[in-house]
Amino acid sequence: MTQASTAMSAIKDYILSHHLRPGDPLPTESKLCADLGVSRSSVREAVRTLVALDIVEVRHGQGMFVGQVSMRPMVESLVFRGLLAPGDDYASLRDVVDVRMTLDSALADDVVKAWKGRPDPVLDGYIDDMEELAAEGKTFSEQDQAFHARLLEPLANHLWAHLIDAFWAVHTLTVPLMDAPAAEDIITTAKAHREMLEAARRGDVEAYREATHKHYAPLVLALSSPRPPRP
Amino acid sequence: MTQASTAMSAIKDYILSHHLRPGDPLPTESKLCADLGVSRSSVREAVRTLVALDIVEVRHGQGMFVGQVSMRPMVESLVFRGLLAPGDDYASLRDVVDVRMTLDSALADDVVKAWKGRPDPVLDGYIDDMEELAAEGKTFSEQDQAFHARLLEPLANHLWAHLIDAFWAVHTLTVPLMDAPAAEDIITTAKAHREMLEAARRGDVEAYREATHKHYAPLVLALSSPRPPRP
Repeated sequence: MTQASTAMSAIKDYILSHHLRPGDPLPTESKLCADLGVSRSSVREAVRTLVALDIVEVRHGQGMFVGQVSMRPMVESLVFRGLLAPGDDYASLRDVVDVRMTLDSALADDVVKAWKGRPDPVLDGYIDDMEELAAEGKTFSEQDQAFHARLLEPLANHLWAHLIDAFWAVHTLTVPLMDAPAAEDIITTAKAHREMLEAARRGDVEAYREATHKHYAPLVLALSSPRPPRP
Repeated sequence: MTQASTAMSAIKDYILSHHLRPGDPLPTESKLCADLGVSRSSVREAVRTLVALDIVEVRHGQGMFVGQVSMRPMVESLVFRGLLAPGDDYASLRDVVDVRMTLDSALADDVVKAWKGRPDPVLDGYIDDMEELAAEGKTFSEQDQAFHARLLEPLANHLWAHLIDAFWAVHTLTVPLMDAPAAEDIITTAKAHREMLEAARRGDVEAYREATHKHYAPLVLALSSPRPPRP
């Protein structure tokens, strides 16, 4: 084990044994060197790795803090993995969409249970915005992501929201590599969000699943066409 | 943008524009400094972050290579996130098991389709080993992971195998924090693997789902009991 990996384990142990939470301050670099008995360069190397994993956050002029331990590292890896995929087709992006579709379908029961008969002006607002943008031929990835995140918010298991969000991010970062979607596809996708929410509010799991499926249809179709050559 | 993040993007772009694959060699540190016009310390910092994300691999005395871009960073984050979870109960581990159960259930159709009527001495071997170890009161996480990995191997979408494997790893790394499982639970779990495979071979999706569910039962029960205090 190198000095840097010893330092990394020691910093993680420090966070756990002191019951620290995301955002809590960590000791200074000098204090860590002294406490752990390792060199300053090893502590620096360890901190850089922990920052990459979102376990530590460095705020300039303020010091080090416990990070958000988000899914961001996974998203970066997945996006890169997608871009690395062999061949110049959309295979890896199709895999991501396939995972999203299956997760949405697997969570249909819970989502419908959570939203049955439940009004929510925020969700309605996202859909209104999407339809408005779609009518102008504009895309709406921000509202789209916010919609899906809010839809999963009531679920007791927050890992789902993180997972879906991570796959959503992969998707958003790789979609710009494709041709721009057609105007009618943007409108279909916006409308499908409303159908999803309405089905959930009626408590109709099957209709919710169908609307979810429909909401991916233009994307699935675009991904089955050949990929344009890389610039 | 700092010099290090410029260097990081440049290295990623280099990998993509040269169509490199995992395991392919990268230019030396000096060549990267010269080509990208950034300092050696920035390149080093960038490389450390990329190593943490498993995008670059450093082999001592051999140089730098494109990494495996695995789910390892996600696993590290998830394990740590689980340990950080508020309260001294098993809530975060229950969430992980919940995700595994839902994914297994969502993939039941595809798994059964892949294995219907298909003999496989390797899978049978894993189960024999599990049952043998269980009879001696020993656990079998290695064979367990190998079993699940092989079960998903025939699926066209390899992201599933990576996801399930990542959640499996989270699980294995956090389970040692719990009390040792009872001997009869180990035997039940080993047997349930055989039932899963037999159901898949018969082409019986419902029986496969039931066996999968049963295979998690001892764990779900253990996770619903109060957590022992941290050492």
